[in-house]
Amino acid sequence: MGENKKIGMVVFSGTEDKMIPVGVISQGAAAMGYDVLIFFTGWAMFRLLKKPIEPRWPKEFEQMVPSLVDGMKRIKAPSWVDMLRQAKEMGAKVYVCSMMSQAAGLRKEDFDSSLVDDVVGVAAFLEMAEGGQVLFI
Amino acid sequence: MGENKKIGMVVFSGTEDKMIPVGVISQGAAAMGYDVLIFFTGWAMFRLLKKPIEPRWPKEFEQMVPSLVDGMKRIKAPSWVDMLRQAKEMGAKVYVCSMMSQAAGLRKEDFDSSLVDDVVGVAAFLEMAEGGQVLFI
Amino acid sequence: MGENKKIGMVVFSGTEDKMIPVGVISQGAAAMGYDVLIFFTGWAMFRLLKKPIEPRWPKEFEQMVPSLVDGMKRIKAPSWVDMLRQAKEMGAKVYVCSMMSQAAGLRKEDFDSSLVDDVVGVAAFLEMAEGGQVLFI
Repeated sequence: MGENKKIGMVVFSGTEDKMIPVGVISQGAAAMGYDVLIFFTGWAMFRLLKKPIEPRWPKEFEQMVPSLVDGMKRIKAPSWVDMLRQAKEMGAKVYVCSMMSQAAGLRKEDFDSSLVDDVVGVAAFLEMAEGGQVLFI
Repeated sequence: MGENKKIGMVVFSGTEDKMIPVGVISQGAAAMGYDVLIFFTGWAMFRLLKKPIEPRWPKEFEQMVPSLVDGMKRIKAPSWVDMLRQAKEMGAKVYVCSMMSQAAGLRKEDFDSSLVDDVVGVAAFLEMAEGGQVLFI
Repeated sequence: MGENKKIGMVVFSGTEDKMIPVGVISQGAAAMGYDVLIFFTGWAMFRLLKKPIEPRWPKEFEQMVPSLVDGMKRIKAPSWVDMLRQAKEMGAKVYVCSMMSQAAGLRKEDFDSSLVDDVVGVAAFLEMAEGGQVLFI
């Protein structure tokens, strides 16, 4: 217990609601002393660009989105980006999938270097995440 | 084998289709002797209210929903709520995310107390789920 | 390290974008020597039929789909089915959920036997996946 706790996240879905748990779990786990490793791929990686795509919310819950956004502000919850930054200050590492970024015609310099540590393949990520819990978000 | 097997679920997505595996995995794992810990957050927590929101189904598979619902009835599969209750009778614990419920203006007494054991933060959940498998649903 | 590494996937969502990481992770993990166990259920199992349903893409990212599909072709990425086949050649096992297939009125012989090893219950899958990482996709 205590040492070598590790949590990995494969962040794929990319709708804005699911970025909240990415931020919350990263920040919470890093604060608890976990090694935190995050692998952005799929639609989610486009939110880490220097010029990120616009946020999308899930169609099924569209009417509830304004209330969620207002509520997060009211309780002064940090944005997922700020939570991710806090996690990174505590040692969390953020990677982008090399295959998916290549398919999208994106290079490392297209991503916000204050958020993204490196562009790596899934095998490299799995190796780093070995022995830890892994969430697919 | 046998002792200390543990499975955690972070249940976020909240569409009704994904509540089925929450019920099935909870019930199945609890019956196999797993410690089962379920953390409801995001859209999913609104299904645990005393007055739950209406079920939503994924837009992409809308035409297939009636057939799924009919099929589940035909094979006499219990509802996900009933499977969750069975899991709880075998020791599964159900938590709601304190941050998301606060953002939604919900208090512990707004949730169905026959389903929800407590409202806790993500750090408390991660601590309980430590060393186990964790699914993000 | 090296022996007994195990990764399980519960593949539920079924939109075509999320089949890509199923293929990539299966293939990558199998090549790294992982035991790979994949449990298709929900909407995803209909993509393994002899006569699979048409691919569906997530509504939220519809405009970006042609660009993703073109990009995957341009970098000559194999399809997820081909990656799954490669994983299977390296030992990955593919299962379909008995409960969901029964609810859908499907039998083992309705599934592509070059892709599906067996139809099993969730308890059998959890037992096989015990001690490994598990992703819910």
